[in-house]
Amino acid sequence: MTATSDDELDEVYAFAVQLGKEAGDMLMGAARSRFGDAGQSEQAVEEKENAVDIVTKTDEAVEAFIKSSIEARYPGHKFIGEETYSKGSSREYLITDVAPTWCVDPLDGTVNFTHLFPMFCVSIGFIIGGEAVIGVIYAPFLNQLFSACRGRGAWLNETLPLPLVRNPVPAMPPQAPSGCVFSCEWGKDRRDTPDGNMHRKVESFVNMAAEVGGREGKGGMVHGVRSLGSATLDLAYTAMGAFDIWWEGGCWEWDVAAGIAVLQEAGGLVTTANPPEEPDTAEIPDVRLGSRLYLAIRPAGPSATESGRQGQERVVREVWRRVRSMDYARPGA
Amino acid sequence: MTATSDDELDEVYAFAVQLGKEAGDMLMGAARSRFGDAGQSEQAVEEKENAVDIVTKTDEAVEAFIKSSIEARYPGHKFIGEETYSKGSSREYLITDVAPTWCVDPLDGTVNFTHLFPMFCVSIGFIIGGEAVIGVIYAPFLNQLFSACRGRGAWLNETLPLPLVRNPVPAMPPQAPSGCVFSCEWGKDRRDTPDGNMHRKVESFVNMAAEVGGREGKGGMVHGVRSLGSATLDLAYTAMGAFDIWWEGGCWEWDVAAGIAVLQEAGGLVTTANPPEEPDTAEIPDVRLGSRLYLAIRPAGPSATESGRQGQERVVREVWRRVRSMDYARPGA
Repeated sequence: MTATSDDELDEVYAFAVQLGKEAGDMLMGAARSRFGDAGQSEQAVEEKENAVDIVTKTDEAVEAFIKSSIEARYPGHKFIGEETYSKGSSREYLITDVAPTWCVDPLDGTVNFTHLFPMFCVSIGFIIGGEAVIGVIYAPFLNQLFSACRGRGAWLNETLPLPLVRNPVPAMPPQAPSGCVFSCEWGKDRRDTPDGNMHRKVESFVNMAAEVGGREGKGGMVHGVRSLGSATLDLAYTAMGAFDIWWEGGCWEWDVAAGIAVLQEAGGLVTTANPPEEPDTAEIPDVRLGSRLYLAIRPAGPSATESGRQGQERVVREVWRRVRSMDYARPGA
Repeated sequence: MTATSDDELDEVYAFAVQLGKEAGDMLMGAARSRFGDAGQSEQAVEEKENAVDIVTKTDEAVEAFIKSSIEARYPGHKFIGEETYSKGSSREYLITDVAPTWCVDPLDGTVNFTHLFPMFCVSIGFIIGGEAVIGVIYAPFLNQLFSACRGRGAWLNETLPLPLVRNPVPAMPPQAPSGCVFSCEWGKDRRDTPDGNMHRKVESFVNMAAEVGGREGKGGMVHGVRSLGSATLDLAYTAMGAFDIWWEGGCWEWDVAAGIAVLQEAGGLVTTANPPEEPDTAEIPDVRLGSRLYLAIRPAGPSATESGRQGQERVVREVWRRVRSMDYARPGA
């Protein structure tokens, strides 16, 4: 592909932010139509439908809006959305190096949206040369808009730079994962298969949580364990510095493209969730967008003894020492 | 005590709401002073202190503000706060039937506040005759104020009645816990003791999460598992209807007093976390504020075959069938 100029990128970024705001407002409108302060007769009709149907309709309507807006403005760009993808017959990885590509989840945190828990958002990623360079995440019930564009910083509500604490950005805790907030998700794969993904996840969660010295030395005694039900917002809060570590398997590129763009621009590190054979010495690979296996570390400043990047890599290895490999297949990635 | 008149209760409620707003603004001011958009020199000074020290200072300052405001306005009322309590030598249960009592956590979600994750709040409960009749919860980084007073409804931001979906309020799912969002917390008790509280909690979480038919028939296949790190906000979101079930052991009355007031006024049910010997037939006891063991069910409307209360009780029993008893001692409760 031809390199995108700085001016073009600025324009695409402004377009993406506006698109995110409008799409988020659509989500909030659909949520609000179910509130008890809406006209009673209107709501009575709505709620006769299964809440899940309302959600599916909203999901599809918002994706159609985003897709058509992009096609009208940038007819040469490729579009990959969660909804259109799900209806296809395969889950092949479709992002190439060739065309600038939009990778969109119209509604991340679908279960939250169904239950009206505020942790839902629209997630818009823009990819050049296979890398997410723009990310826009809008959680309208929280009034939180996260956005980033390569070289232009990462922002909360367009005014607060990310990470929030930045003069200086705190170093990773010396005894990490102790002192860290650990974000993880139970996900949908709950098969009770011996040594299946659910049990591997839970074993990993417990290792990270248990007292130091426990779990045959694997106890990480993290400061807190959090599960929000939105991969996108997990990444956004990691970019903010609120979560130190996010570890997850099973989600898809539309769940993470925008979040990875925001996190990387904020100074975070993203690599693979699955530990290599030699976690203490293996090279730390850059994340592959379609890998379905993600480990994210928050932005970090230097300490007296190591650079920010060294601190992040130390934490990656400490996580790898405590977690199990997960088994998520991915055609074409 | 003498019965509090309706007018008096209205006055106390208005006072509590205003107090919550001012205390929440203090919390947000302290959070904001750590943001990178604050004066750089000022922040550099602040961050030289351990973040934990800043949090402790804020916690104490907010509690002192709330306590002195209450003492000035209602000198005859009793005050129990998390900070003053923690400094005492015992954790005896101090709430009596005799005097109207304020039960306050100046900062719930302390770990979240330390890391600037938005799920923190001030929690103000007002208790008459041993029962929480007013609750005010303000999460300033989320702009969410939850409030309730017995007989006056429960509210989000003073304008949206809780639960949010209410025309009609949805019945509990017929296959619950399937279809339910399950909220739980890992807490601070992470000892790796065989059959200790951490392992009992995790076993219970996995039973609730696993596929139906899994876990020797205990699999609950809940719709989602969430952990926010704030007991108060867990209860607030259960009152909102966003969480269907909250199950927790180990927290204290100042963590739950306001949340229980909001949840009960919204129509929710709160009982004990620990299953009785006969979970299918045992009476469902009212929650004891100081029990440290809580199971909360969201407000529920009737279905074709059962009342809202019957649906809630069915879900209580389904949870009890899947969870382990936890071991949390409580002097004087």
